[in-house]
Amino acid sequence: MKEIRPKVTLVGAGPGDPDLITLKGIKAIEAADVILYDALVNESLLDYASQDCTKIYVGKRAERLSTSQDHINQLLVDYALTHGHVVRLKGGDPFVFGRGGEELDFVRQFDIPTAVVPGISSSVGLTGLQQIPLTYRGISESFWVITGSTSDGNLSNDLYKAVETNATVVVLMGFSKLREIVALYQSYGKSELPIALIQNGSLPNERVVLGRIDNIIQEAERSLVGVPAIIVLGEVVAKHLEFEAVKQEVATLNTAY
Amino acid sequence: MKEIRPKVTLVGAGPGDPDLITLKGIKAIEAADVILYDALVNESLLDYASQDCTKIYVGKRAERLSTSQDHINQLLVDYALTHGHVVRLKGGDPFVFGRGGEELDFVRQFDIPTAVVPGISSSVGLTGLQQIPLTYRGISESFWVITGSTSDGNLSNDLYKAVETNATVVVLMGFSKLREIVALYQSYGKSELPIALIQNGSLPNERVVLGRIDNIIQEAERSLVGVPAIIVLGEVVAKHLEFEAVKQEVATLNTAY
Repeated sequence: MKEIRPKVTLVGAGPGDPDLITLKGIKAIEAADVILYDALVNESLLDYASQDCTKIYVGKRAERLSTSQDHINQLLVDYALTHGHVVRLKGGDPFVFGRGGEELDFVRQFDIPTAVVPGISSSVGLTGLQQIPLTYRGISESFWVITGSTSDGNLSNDLYKAVETNATVVVLMGFSKLREIVALYQSYGKSELPIALIQNGSLPNERVVLGRIDNIIQEAERSLVGVPAIIVLGEVVAKHLEFEAVKQEVATLNTAY
Repeated sequence: MKEIRPKVTLVGAGPGDPDLITLKGIKAIEAADVILYDALVNESLLDYASQDCTKIYVGKRAERLSTSQDHINQLLVDYALTHGHVVRLKGGDPFVFGRGGEELDFVRQFDIPTAVVPGISSSVGLTGLQQIPLTYRGISESFWVITGSTSDGNLSNDLYKAVETNATVVVLMGFSKLREIVALYQSYGKSELPIALIQNGSLPNERVVLGRIDNIIQEAERSLVGVPAIIVLGEVVAKHLEFEAVKQEVATLNTAY
């Protein structure tokens, strides 16, 4: 009988395209006795698992977030103790709003060894694929990644600070707050700031909407863009190859005033 | 004779461990006619290249930064026009302080098609491997990645804003500014804030130093840590498995006052 060696490894699956996982991530999947995977994980990655591997979908339902996080924590421990090496496969990077830290804290209470394999966060990866540079000499010396989904339902306080800076700002899970974010930037006189929305980034059904603060709501409605989408705010967005067309459109709008 | 199809692809090689490149990155290397690679790129990645591929080291020397960036830009164009597909292999992610945006801008002037394959930024990857969560519910709703190396030699203005927030802050290329950063955080009453230094992250000679603002200089000197190192500032650093020992040491120091 095979000896059980409990272990839990958090693995980042990347933003969607299965080729955006790391080699180290693939090796972890290959070595897994059990895989617990999320809704945002590309299921073709499960093909790397061994035949004996138990694969369990633990995608959360919006209506019962907290219960299911407790449930996932417990599953990680139960499967590690009974099956051995559990890989927790998460979309993007496990520590970028993935509640990976909470999962590790829970698992460690049971003296189960843990490891982390980083993944391409959508904040870095989807902007990169769109050739939007997060930083650029003379334009942006930093980038700030902020959740759009705080526990109290309000905009993160960090966004109120971010709007005052020249940092490139990426908001994850914030599409439903787009109107509030636009209003915030307008109140700081940043109506002309370039902004991009990227839905289903890196996947065949990817949609990208480019604009400025003042016209992005209209552009998003016209393009029928929806969740899951990331929001990118900053002058660097103007580096996108198709941004010129948007600029001309805005210039026409301005002339019309 | 093979038809020349000029193209330039920026590829992120990840933070050091060759297993931290993506599959997409490996496929780009395999398809390259020419590879221009940096000092921080793990050279074992070049083994994925075809036999015919021309591999050129373009690691910069500190004393002639701007010249060599111009030189690299020109090499990208020259090789694309004469050889076809040029892969520009860069440490970490091409757009996180990699001057990738400038390279693309230059190349596009010659109507050469461009593409980007994102990589694991050391900001996300090295913290992840150390099991320091960049975000954590109730502790940090965001992370902010800032360069420590601005063109005028001063601390980035963004750091003066960042110190006022609860964001997890990651400073890249800032080790030589550690004293200034510590002084800044002390001036904001953040002497107890957890901080980590990660040198040669993900490589066999990795060194990690944990501490708080008030003792990190001393800890860094004791551990002989040096460049290249990233600096991580925030309460989440206390989640590192070995942080408890540091906490107790600080408690002892406080009692001694």
